[in-house]
Amino acid sequence: MESIYDLIIIGGGPAGITAAIYGARKALKVLLLTKDFVGQMGRTDSIENYPGFSQIGGMDLSKKFREHLKKFSVEIKEGSEVKSLLKLDKVFKAETIKGEVFEAKSVVVASGRNPRPLRIPGEKEFEGKGVSFCGTCDAPFFKDKTVAVIGGGNAALETVLDLLPFAAKIYVLEISSRLLADEIIQQRAKDSGKAEIILRAQALEIKGKSTVENLVFRDLKSNQNKELGVQGVFIEIGSLPATDFLKDLVDFNKAGEIVIDPLACATKTPGLFAAGDVTNVKYKQIVVAAGEGAKAALSAYNYLQNQ
Amino acid sequence: MESIYDLIIIGGGPAGITAAIYGARKALKVLLLTKDFVGQMGRTDSIENYPGFSQIGGMDLSKKFREHLKKFSVEIKEGSEVKSLLKLDKVFKAETIKGEVFEAKSVVVASGRNPRPLRIPGEKEFEGKGVSFCGTCDAPFFKDKTVAVIGGGNAALETVLDLLPFAAKIYVLEISSRLLADEIIQQRAKDSGKAEIILRAQALEIKGKSTVENLVFRDLKSNQNKELGVQGVFIEIGSLPATDFLKDLVDFNKAGEIVIDPLACATKTPGLFAAGDVTNVKYKQIVVAAGEGAKAALSAYNYLQNQ
Repeated sequence: MESIYDLIIIGGGPAGITAAIYGARKALKVLLLTKDFVGQMGRTDSIENYPGFSQIGGMDLSKKFREHLKKFSVEIKEGSEVKSLLKLDKVFKAETIKGEVFEAKSVVVASGRNPRPLRIPGEKEFEGKGVSFCGTCDAPFFKDKTVAVIGGGNAALETVLDLLPFAAKIYVLEISSRLLADEIIQQRAKDSGKAEIILRAQALEIKGKSTVENLVFRDLKSNQNKELGVQGVFIEIGSLPATDFLKDLVDFNKAGEIVIDPLACATKTPGLFAAGDVTNVKYKQIVVAAGEGAKAALSAYNYLQNQ
Repeated sequence: MESIYDLIIIGGGPAGITAAIYGARKALKVLLLTKDFVGQMGRTDSIENYPGFSQIGGMDLSKKFREHLKKFSVEIKEGSEVKSLLKLDKVFKAETIKGEVFEAKSVVVASGRNPRPLRIPGEKEFEGKGVSFCGTCDAPFFKDKTVAVIGGGNAALETVLDLLPFAAKIYVLEISSRLLADEIIQQRAKDSGKAEIILRAQALEIKGKSTVENLVFRDLKSNQNKELGVQGVFIEIGSLPATDFLKDLVDFNKAGEIVIDPLACATKTPGLFAAGDVTNVKYKQIVVAAGEGAKAALSAYNYLQNQ
């Protein structure tokens, strides 16, 4: 067992890193636990709305944030996804999937959002073996391949654009009767000649031996099952707040987001704060998440002063 | 009269610039009105807590923000301080001190804070002629001079540090019986041998012919008026939200800050939003203000969609 921290931050995105910078600047003993430093920001190709950087790749901005963080004395554990968080008396206990246990007097949850899964056979089995949740990261692996993109929103069509320089053929399967992506992105996908849009198509199963070979879908127009020969399946059907480890320490809204007092980023549990896209903050934006991270850490600091 | 804008943004600090970037990215017709691009950020020597930049000067960060903004089609009017803002029917009318009048369907107020004045004789008269509200900006003008710094908080003592490489002698006048600045900054000022701290000293008058020559203060210990021969007076006694132009379009808290709905940055007037240090946002920080600016612009966009 390590000695007790002043502040554990859960998450390595803009909210978590900013919270860590602010916590360290207040001379708190800070531990940052994160699954990885990819997150939603890392999965973004080009960012043009984080003030100060006119245009920067998501992984590059994440790297800038981490370099900034390294100026301060913050303990960082990557690969330490938190599995459960408990509060006993005034002490929080965070257990990671590796079985590590850490204790702290206060916590900022900045775990962000995970891609929403399809929950169909083959999806988990072939993740990393043809199934991907990140076009920006994985498109180059599909040179001259045939792939399917599941979803019809901006994220799905941007994945099509990510794939255009590489893939030979791209199926886009959307369950409803129209694409929701901005017209300008749809047009660029269509103009490529490589993308084939299939509407009212419900993905049912991903099949293969060691890697993805086929995608089975229900054609809701004809009510028949059909099969596409594909070597890749990109799933882009939205995201879910990453809160499995939290249980009843916080209140959730209908979207599963942590309900915070928006002035202080406080949750219903004293000493437990939350920031960024995992919360009910109205806008999911990098600069907003960073600002929320600062607020949460300063609120944690104020909380600790009164203990 | 110009044609009507979708969005007028008042202020050129982190909140205002971020609001402008977000407004432009939503393809709104945006006008940014600002007195200048200095503000509180520009008056800061070194910034180490805006994520992505480990260490950057305030004016340099302001320049980065403005360069970012210039990528977008936003009309910018510098030197156009807003004197009054009215709402007639659904149209906002902003008049500047130059007499310009601009109309918009929505407004984001991001006017930040101004230095709090002493309100003593000579203060206004000698502003720019020895009286300064910005150590970072004006310290180099006082090479080998004797100056007074009014105030005892961090901003005042940081002004002393700004002056150390230049001034020959620095008086620090604090009205209460102790300095409030962090111990580490006080110590650096004291160690210099150039700073003389005068506690329980109330500034009464700044005198001179064309420029500052003397500072009169009340020594509250002896209840006698005393006079110091100084060529400069730096006033650092806090700040006030810049809201003179607003009247009853918004509610104010006791500190004179605009009360907003913190989720959406909305004020009590539909179409009027506010962001950053001018509001009751709990923490006055660059990254928080930037996040608030993004929220305000996105809320203005949502408002305009429903008009």
